[in-house]
Amino acid sequence: MNTKRYMIKDTNKGLLHTLDPNETGGLDSKKEAEVKILQLKERLAELQDILFAQKKHALLVILQGMDSSGKDGTVKHIFSGINPQGFIVTSFKKPSLEEEAHDFLWRVHQKTPPRGYIAAFNRSHYEDVLVPRVHGNLSKEDAKRRFRYIRQFEEMLVEEGTTVIKLFLHISKEKQLEKIQERLQDPKKHWKFDASDLQERGYWDDYQKYYEDVFKESSTEQAPWFWIPANHRWYRNYLALAIVVQTLEGLELSYPKLDTPTPDISELISPRH
Amino acid sequence: MNTKRYMIKDTNKGLLHTLDPNETGGLDSKKEAEVKILQLKERLAELQDILFAQKKHALLVILQGMDSSGKDGTVKHIFSGINPQGFIVTSFKKPSLEEEAHDFLWRVHQKTPPRGYIAAFNRSHYEDVLVPRVHGNLSKEDAKRRFRYIRQFEEMLVEEGTTVIKLFLHISKEKQLEKIQERLQDPKKHWKFDASDLQERGYWDDYQKYYEDVFKESSTEQAPWFWIPANHRWYRNYLALAIVVQTLEGLELSYPKLDTPTPDISELISPRH
Repeated sequence: MNTKRYMIKDTNKGLLHTLDPNETGGLDSKKEAEVKILQLKERLAELQDILFAQKKHALLVILQGMDSSGKDGTVKHIFSGINPQGFIVTSFKKPSLEEEAHDFLWRVHQKTPPRGYIAAFNRSHYEDVLVPRVHGNLSKEDAKRRFRYIRQFEEMLVEEGTTVIKLFLHISKEKQLEKIQERLQDPKKHWKFDASDLQERGYWDDYQKYYEDVFKESSTEQAPWFWIPANHRWYRNYLALAIVVQTLEGLELSYPKLDTPTPDISELISPRH
Repeated sequence: MNTKRYMIKDTNKGLLHTLDPNETGGLDSKKEAEVKILQLKERLAELQDILFAQKKHALLVILQGMDSSGKDGTVKHIFSGINPQGFIVTSFKKPSLEEEAHDFLWRVHQKTPPRGYIAAFNRSHYEDVLVPRVHGNLSKEDAKRRFRYIRQFEEMLVEEGTTVIKLFLHISKEKQLEKIQERLQDPKKHWKFDASDLQERGYWDDYQKYYEDVFKESSTEQAPWFWIPANHRWYRNYLALAIVVQTLEGLELSYPKLDTPTPDISELISPRH
């Protein structure tokens, strides 16, 4: 599958209206995707093992999207098969007082992956160029400045060995309502309901507009944004997984060789022992 | 006193040879400095109190210098009178395995001060453009890249509210030997002796050369380097303190006002209570 076409390059105003959250890339059903998902998960586990052994590269996957767009579900599905020892996931909530007293990159920098690791950000520093803009607490000029810090920060991470990919989970406004209703009706999902989500839903158009600005300012060649049609969970999972796997394939990973000549251990394993 | 003239602006090769580590800025004796030091310390404590109350600015003081140049002593002397609750000092040693697996700014970013605080770095990210260069483990090109990250990082800190000053404690090679001998002879200073200091002393000229490169690449208007003649401890302390105080004076600090009108508490303190 060609995931490249989901990379966000042209960033015109109104971009999000041209991207269909119902898209399924030609696949007809969940069933069709499931076999592919299994194969990709196996491959991901293999690649992560080499990444961890080699300790040369790191991978940072940033997940953003409107409330209920499926960030938690995506993390759960695509990374559930890998070795948790080499994986770090961080959910960035409303900043604490201590976090607010620092620059906005302070808390995210701490959670970047060391070489050998995969890290996922469930929300990220992009919240800091979205939420305060929607609510009128960040001027255009200050946002510009933050975008510059973001580009420089991500560029530094990339040059120092961390591959950065950014996934925008794209759902429709109708789908969001449906998912909020699910949360209210299903006792297993009650805990995910947050009354403030309803409030933020009122700012839907503003969020879409500022997301478009995010893509314009930060979808760089080194740290690109991908959009993920996310109305269908199964396609969302499949595509996100495929992007992660293809990104790792591109790293030319290989197990490190022994530094020393292979020692002769035949005596150790001889019957006399 | 005019501390501005210690700011490093012209950064020619051979710069350090033109700066006299024995200089005492016209002062004749330790005694003469002591009264001034006391006054400055009192003023520093006052300014820190306002900084802490206002929570608008932060100050980061980066200390660098050859082994035995007096970094520990400077921290101890200039900051011993302030409220420790608003002060953070971090000594950066040889990076741990975990630190090495991240970009070189990862560990220092974590230790930057929140608004309201003063932080001192005893050694810093500048070690990462000195030690590996001296020992041939960092190419000129990679060093250039790191300097770019440093400039961008410090610029971001400054724009986000942290004033950054960088102090280079400048001693002579003879003075270093004298201080190493002190450490060997005085039982109270034995613990400070490190055999590797003697080894690094062999690279004196290389360190001086790469320090000059540090100044050239990173003495910016926003985050300037100051050189501190450090052969005389008392002048070193006096000058470093004066630079810190003058920097804080430049911030136009003020205590925050009450948000609400002053409540009438006369009843609470009336004799009837």
